Amino acid sequence: MAETGFQPVSGFDLPRFAGIASFMRLPMIGLDDPRLPQVDIGLIGLPWDAGTTNRPGPRHGPRQVRDMSTMIRAQHGVSGVRPFETVNCADLGDVPPNPADLSDAMDRITKAVTRVHKAGILPVCVGGDHLCTLPVLRALAADAPLGLIHFDSHTDLFHSYFGGSMYTHGTPFRRAVEEGLLDPARMIQIGIRGTAYDSEDRAFAAEQGIRIVTIEELFDRGLKDVMAEARQIAGTGPTYVSYDIDFVDPAYAPGTGTPEVGGPNAFQALQVVRELAGVNIAGADLVEVSPPFDGSGGTAFLAASILFEMLCIIAPALAASRRVD
Amino acid sequence: MAETGFQPVSGFDLPRFAGIASFMRLPMIGLDDPRLPQVDIGLIGLPWDAGTTNRPGPRHGPRQVRDMSTMIRAQHGVSGVRPFETVNCADLGDVPPNPADLSDAMDRITKAVTRVHKAGILPVCVGGDHLCTLPVLRALAADAPLGLIHFDSHTDLFHSYFGGSMYTHGTPFRRAVEEGLLDPARMIQIGIRGTAYDSEDRAFAAEQGIRIVTIEELFDRGLKDVMAEARQIAGTGPTYVSYDIDFVDPAYAPGTGTPEVGGPNAFQALQVVRELAGVNIAGADLVEVSPPFDGSGGTAFLAASILFEMLCIIAPALAASRRVD
Amino acid sequence: MAETGFQPVSGFDLPRFAGIASFMRLPMIGLDDPRLPQVDIGLIGLPWDAGTTNRPGPRHGPRQVRDMSTMIRAQHGVSGVRPFETVNCADLGDVPPNPADLSDAMDRITKAVTRVHKAGILPVCVGGDHLCTLPVLRALAADAPLGLIHFDSHTDLFHSYFGGSMYTHGTPFRRAVEEGLLDPARMIQIGIRGTAYDSEDRAFAAEQGIRIVTIEELFDRGLKDVMAEARQIAGTGPTYVSYDIDFVDPAYAPGTGTPEVGGPNAFQALQVVRELAGVNIAGADLVEVSPPFDGSGGTAFLAASILFEMLCIIAPALAASRRVD
Amino acid sequence: MAETGFQPVSGFDLPRFAGIASFMRLPMIGLDDPRLPQVDIGLIGLPWDAGTTNRPGPRHGPRQVRDMSTMIRAQHGVSGVRPFETVNCADLGDVPPNPADLSDAMDRITKAVTRVHKAGILPVCVGGDHLCTLPVLRALAADAPLGLIHFDSHTDLFHSYFGGSMYTHGTPFRRAVEEGLLDPARMIQIGIRGTAYDSEDRAFAAEQGIRIVTIEELFDRGLKDVMAEARQIAGTGPTYVSYDIDFVDPAYAPGTGTPEVGGPNAFQALQVVRELAGVNIAGADLVEVSPPFDGSGGTAFLAASILFEMLCIIAPALAASRRVD
Amino acid sequence: MAETGFQPVSGFDLPRFAGIASFMRLPMIGLDDPRLPQVDIGLIGLPWDAGTTNRPGPRHGPRQVRDMSTMIRAQHGVSGVRPFETVNCADLGDVPPNPADLSDAMDRITKAVTRVHKAGILPVCVGGDHLCTLPVLRALAADAPLGLIHFDSHTDLFHSYFGGSMYTHGTPFRRAVEEGLLDPARMIQIGIRGTAYDSEDRAFAAEQGIRIVTIEELFDRGLKDVMAEARQIAGTGPTYVSYDIDFVDPAYAPGTGTPEVGGPNAFQALQVVRELAGVNIAGADLVEVSPPFDGSGGTAFLAASILFEMLCIIAPALAASRRVD
Amino acid sequence: MAETGFQPVSGFDLPRFAGIASFMRLPMIGLDDPRLPQVDIGLIGLPWDAGTTNRPGPRHGPRQVRDMSTMIRAQHGVSGVRPFETVNCADLGDVPPNPADLSDAMDRITKAVTRVHKAGILPVCVGGDHLCTLPVLRALAADAPLGLIHFDSHTDLFHSYFGGSMYTHGTPFRRAVEEGLLDPARMIQIGIRGTAYDSEDRAFAAEQGIRIVTIEELFDRGLKDVMAEARQIAGTGPTYVSYDIDFVDPAYAPGTGTPEVGGPNAFQALQVVRELAGVNIAGADLVEVSPPFDGSGGTAFLAASILFEMLCIIAPALAASRRVD
Repeated sequence: MAETGFQPVSGFDLPRFAGIASFMRLPMIGLDDPRLPQVDIGLIGLPWDAGTTNRPGPRHGPRQVRDMSTMIRAQHGVSGVRPFETVNCADLGDVPPNPADLSDAMDRITKAVTRVHKAGILPVCVGGDHLCTLPVLRALAADAPLGLIHFDSHTDLFHSYFGGSMYTHGTPFRRAVEEGLLDPARMIQIGIRGTAYDSEDRAFAAEQGIRIVTIEELFDRGLKDVMAEARQIAGTGPTYVSYDIDFVDPAYAPGTGTPEVGGPNAFQALQVVRELAGVNIAGADLVEVSPPFDGSGGTAFLAASILFEMLCIIAPALAASRRVD
Repeated sequence: MAETGFQPVSGFDLPRFAGIASFMRLPMIGLDDPRLPQVDIGLIGLPWDAGTTNRPGPRHGPRQVRDMSTMIRAQHGVSGVRPFETVNCADLGDVPPNPADLSDAMDRITKAVTRVHKAGILPVCVGGDHLCTLPVLRALAADAPLGLIHFDSHTDLFHSYFGGSMYTHGTPFRRAVEEGLLDPARMIQIGIRGTAYDSEDRAFAAEQGIRIVTIEELFDRGLKDVMAEARQIAGTGPTYVSYDIDFVDPAYAPGTGTPEVGGPNAFQALQVVRELAGVNIAGADLVEVSPPFDGSGGTAFLAASILFEMLCIIAPALAASRRVD
Repeated sequence: MAETGFQPVSGFDLPRFAGIASFMRLPMIGLDDPRLPQVDIGLIGLPWDAGTTNRPGPRHGPRQVRDMSTMIRAQHGVSGVRPFETVNCADLGDVPPNPADLSDAMDRITKAVTRVHKAGILPVCVGGDHLCTLPVLRALAADAPLGLIHFDSHTDLFHSYFGGSMYTHGTPFRRAVEEGLLDPARMIQIGIRGTAYDSEDRAFAAEQGIRIVTIEELFDRGLKDVMAEARQIAGTGPTYVSYDIDFVDPAYAPGTGTPEVGGPNAFQALQVVRELAGVNIAGADLVEVSPPFDGSGGTAFLAASILFEMLCIIAPALAASRRVD
Repeated sequence: MAETGFQPVSGFDLPRFAGIASFMRLPMIGLDDPRLPQVDIGLIGLPWDAGTTNRPGPRHGPRQVRDMSTMIRAQHGVSGVRPFETVNCADLGDVPPNPADLSDAMDRITKAVTRVHKAGILPVCVGGDHLCTLPVLRALAADAPLGLIHFDSHTDLFHSYFGGSMYTHGTPFRRAVEEGLLDPARMIQIGIRGTAYDSEDRAFAAEQGIRIVTIEELFDRGLKDVMAEARQIAGTGPTYVSYDIDFVDPAYAPGTGTPEVGGPNAFQALQVVRELAGVNIAGADLVEVSPPFDGSGGTAFLAASILFEMLCIIAPALAASRRVD
Repeated sequence: MAETGFQPVSGFDLPRFAGIASFMRLPMIGLDDPRLPQVDIGLIGLPWDAGTTNRPGPRHGPRQVRDMSTMIRAQHGVSGVRPFETVNCADLGDVPPNPADLSDAMDRITKAVTRVHKAGILPVCVGGDHLCTLPVLRALAADAPLGLIHFDSHTDLFHSYFGGSMYTHGTPFRRAVEEGLLDPARMIQIGIRGTAYDSEDRAFAAEQGIRIVTIEELFDRGLKDVMAEARQIAGTGPTYVSYDIDFVDPAYAPGTGTPEVGGPNAFQALQVVRELAGVNIAGADLVEVSPPFDGSGGTAFLAASILFEMLCIIAPALAASRRVD
Repeated sequence: MAETGFQPVSGFDLPRFAGIASFMRLPMIGLDDPRLPQVDIGLIGLPWDAGTTNRPGPRHGPRQVRDMSTMIRAQHGVSGVRPFETVNCADLGDVPPNPADLSDAMDRITKAVTRVHKAGILPVCVGGDHLCTLPVLRALAADAPLGLIHFDSHTDLFHSYFGGSMYTHGTPFRRAVEEGLLDPARMIQIGIRGTAYDSEDRAFAAEQGIRIVTIEELFDRGLKDVMAEARQIAGTGPTYVSYDIDFVDPAYAPGTGTPEVGGPNAFQALQVVRELAGVNIAGADLVEVSPPFDGSGGTAFLAASILFEMLCIIAPALAASRRVD
């Protein structure tokens, strides 16, 4: 049972438009806060987008997601899960980025997430662009490679851009495989679509044994069938969940830098997360929300809703595993 | 057959961007107009949102719906119904609200709708927030409780907010049941979703026998099946139809104060209305269109399209019942 | 095999936000350019909207589509087709419109497209409003009537507007049939929906034998079944494809002047184009993108994605037919 | 003293967001209304923009100005003038335009304004683009040429566009002079700025003796000094006032089709109107408000404020002249 | 000298887009925080707008001002004042509003500000609409009436609205005078403009001896001269400063509910605050920022800049007065 | 006299919304184009913003400026200068940026501008963020330091950010002085305002003898007086003009990443450029236009207007100097 001090402020007490905006209105507990050891799940902002190859802006993502997440309430509408009462959740603040130095910025993320990880906290990260995932994986997979369930319209498996740049938001999973942070046999990428430069990324996936599910396959087979396969691929080992908001159709999530038309709707965007129940989740992220391309906040509200779905899967599993321990 | 004087201006004669905007370009007939007794269906604006607990703005709804409704033409595309030739429809103007006095504002609505009701006019109200429905019900159910078919993402069945405030847009149907304005056995709420504070509203529904259809059930069973059940629950008695625009997914209806992702699309939003054929409709509303959150007018245009669907169901039924009389 | 000189600039070399925006980043080859005879498919802008009866703006369409089309890459994600390597594609620029003289403007389009047509180039036009299609058909059907596969929410088959005006974006296909540019027996209109003035357009269609598929029929039967019928109706003769962006639901394509709610989603918007494989396409257009009603560019990006789907159908067929020749 | 029936609805009684939007919340009196002969000043919408050479949209101007004009109250803040109590003002509705036929559209305007003029009503027109002014002048100057005080960033004195088109929003005053509707010796154009095609317009002005005041001269001499000259040029004869909203700097009035940076601010935009006191105004217009380029309504609110300033000058003069009569 | 713990986060260390947004990036110190007694100046959010008579939204003001205030740095550009090093400043959070009960909401504000006041903290409040000022004055003027320097385009001195409602954002200063919270002889209202209902407010001002400076007088005399008079009127007694953002021209501050065109520019908006040096300021507010009407945040950034100017005047004076003590 | 081939397309021939958008509708002449040696002034896009420390987006600047620059005509409204007939102007395209490698990106700019410079072309660059200026100066000042006239709200003279990052848009002029690219004694920075981190930048300026003119001084003395001083400081030696769009007040130029309220208006923004007549301009730039923060294009239109003013100063001077040669 979660500590009372870790409850979000209720909209019945303080209207949702009032108060300082933390993720889900949870207590703000910095990495030096004495309450840190009590935290079970830590929401962490990664306001960094130096890997963006086209339209920038995800550096503003965490703040807008915090703002819109004040509209999230305490209980899941279908399952009745109350994640904040199940385990202790907190907003751990943002990792301070260095927008002017790509390498330094990645190190900062790795260090901060390593610290969180070593404190026994399961990190749920809010980007930032998809390159953010690489330094997070360096922190979480320092000992052994992780499985990956990856929702996206792009594979992000390219070798390099612009005449040799190895670190962009189109390359993180290529790097992660090369660095041994992910186990290709336990990787699945779901929702892939849009025009392609060439087949280099898919050739790499085929060579490594990474499973790619295109949007056509996803719609043909149905979400439940594909997610059953995803659970099987991930198996029982620790698995990372990476959710790029451009997985969702841009009518539902226009606030992103590299949209691809023809994706899932918002209902489906939530359903795939519900189907993660049973996966041994070691960490998760939600990336590529770009506020300058959706001032309305609708994309960020969808992102917050997806994050809550994640918490409703992770929190009970975490509580159960600890009871076992 | 409707009087010639009650026809909307045609876009073939006066382009849709021209002319003063009344609902559906219908004649404007105030409550003191001598033509009032000839009106069969009265479109009424309720520009009031003092019950809004989060993002305000529905007070601006009627004017934006009027503006966008100028793009509605005279004939239903599928059924061929021409509602304005079937019965006499008119824009009765707005009920003058008091934004600074909640109790006075509700009384004003009840009085105006009572007057319309007593004139034998079937009211179709355009909100305003969902608290507007309560004073409308007080006018229409003064003699006997009504049935309710309610499209929404929220139940609006809560007891109170903010330490005891009984009248907000989250409480109207709780109050209406308590006041005997609605018959719980003839109530159905469709499309319920999103995160929840707790289960208080659903416990009340269960206790009272109010039927709740979640979005998951709606999508699993299909619209036609659920609507068949709705017609059965409503039965043959007089029934009120209340349509909160946040029933629809926010990608289609972003202009609302408390959106919940993962709802029906616009095609489905219209289909549920078509399935109301056969219901004994005593009045209807469309609420929670909030222009400050959708300056494009897309939400209001969807609202106008839904209102036209309602008219195409109500008008023939009304004409038929009068022929019988 | 396409000439090297006709390749688009790659986003790996020049980021997508950089460089002057031509359609798909293709070379710009004006009608007086010596390379014109080498072009196989010519993308042509028709920045003209004097036929618009309601909300204006499609005159700005070509430029915004060019801008957003810089996000299109070289290869189709599913079929692997690389149209720019298959045949020579180019941006032929805009036909200079006369916004102040409707008749002169139509003549300018007919002359320019005639010149392109006589140069053996297959034109893919980007509007502009739907009246643009009429002068294009005058150029392409000068010798014999064409078949038509038409995606739209409106039939555009009306006789006249505003007391006798014969040339508006609601009349082009009526005129084209009257002028013998289209063969009614080989015409199909798909996606028709929305409120109607009356049944005049449908009566004309019935009388002429033009096939109309409403949105209800499209969703009931499924896209593949309807498109099989479309291919059958078009037969083996030369066929024009006209795609009004308001075919798509306004949640996906808000940037248009006469939206109708309840249409296909973006995935479906692309699928219908894929199902054109096998049709003998003589020319195509994408019209009614109105930037003032979607400053975000999302509608234009969808339009660019649809245009790329068209190219991936047309280019291989063209290459095959020429190999046969 | 104005009739009671011609008073606008007060915001103390009906909040400004409520009610159907007519100009200044005045009574709506169509040209066939029996009360027409009682009207002294008639606000008329001219929703037509077929003369626009660049960004379209002023056809939507009258409706947005009506909407925002509901924020105008009954009394001038400085002079204390209450124009609606001084003479009878009314919203005469829109002249039905023909967006598809330039010549027919102009005739419709001339006919309607002639009818208003002959009824003894002083017309204050709300555009529409600047070409609207030409048919208005044809109505008002049928007997004798008028003087002109013209606020604009452009002279609109060009001969023709696009290879000979004589009727665009860049030519109305050239045509009006040629047609003998304006007396060049009594014409002044104030605020001219921006880049120029060439000097053809200024050469025409010089040749005809039309006075042009550039923005540099306006700022150097000051508004009061320039307006004194304007009053002197206009003299005692009947004078038309034409106000193009692009006279004002686009930071204050972005909603227009051909903005020119570096213009007057909003305070100055009102001041020049106040300095019209003493001019024998025979009619006036406010044109080029283009809602698609300012969804916020700020430009339309400025336009409504300018219109109210006009009424506060015209109404007392009209009342005084009638007392004299 | 301020405590180190009360310094804002520097943009050199943490980029301005990163981190949880508190006012000026100051430490968040709730009313129950043990550090409260160390605070000298407390920034307090009042997210409440139930007094709004027209366009709602200021309830969202404090959060957007917090967000945009992260762009404010530590030092005044001209005076070199570093307010956060001069005294201890903090973000005290928001007073929990009750959007559904006007009377309860005002009591909550009065209680919270009383508590702050009694803790010896000078409150700088961020609204919220202008009715918020009344309960703040009830807290600060409990013992003796205050002077008032009031920047606004409206007097807010009306008696009542909508048939007798006494508490709206158009009445707070009338109520405050009636309740003895303000000394009319020490009141000045600057920037008054726009259309008026009637002269009731000005008659009250004249009767009470309240000084009103219209925008015409402000521009004619110049800011410095008017502000010298303001300092003289306020005298040496404790004075409240109330700044309605609609004092500024809507081109600079569009995000407000009741704009009036023709106001000061942003440079002038800051200058009037600088001229407050020497006034004995007992409390201050900045109200009527309405984010739904300016999603860009420009209005909120101007508000944050004005608040920083206030702090640069208040902090040194406070430090000086304490040194004297 | 300029070659005929270098004339922009006239809006009388091709409406401004039509055609592919190059800067000022000038011919597009890449660096490998055989016509390159004929070019006198080259407009160059620098779509790069990796130095941005806060809100990103100037990478999209060149394209939006190109788009809006199609509204610029051929002749200066006041001076009558026709720059495109005076010398040969062309759009040289964009320097291909590397958004993922700061050092590579700067090298690319230096190389491209060096090539232009060696071809005898005077470069006018369109950013991109202000860090772009540093590699441009490395190209132009390779032989000898330049003077600088710099319009901005910030000095951009800081040493480093984020714990040592030396290359951001806050440091270019510090680096340029350190690298000997600028002569401090011939540098003037005009319009400086806003809050400050500290006085480090001003201390550096004082130490180096760089002249800083704050906005207060600019407004007090007047533009002409300050610009006279600027001309004196620049002297007769070759001088670079750098114009950051945030020099202008954000009401006029909201589309920028680090706005500071209280700046010049658009009229003044143009006047300062006119006062550059007589300066020996060796190159110029206009930077920091960020389209994601102004989708309306108003900021970019102001930028295009400023660029045209620059051309009207540079072209005649260039023509004169060549006649002398």
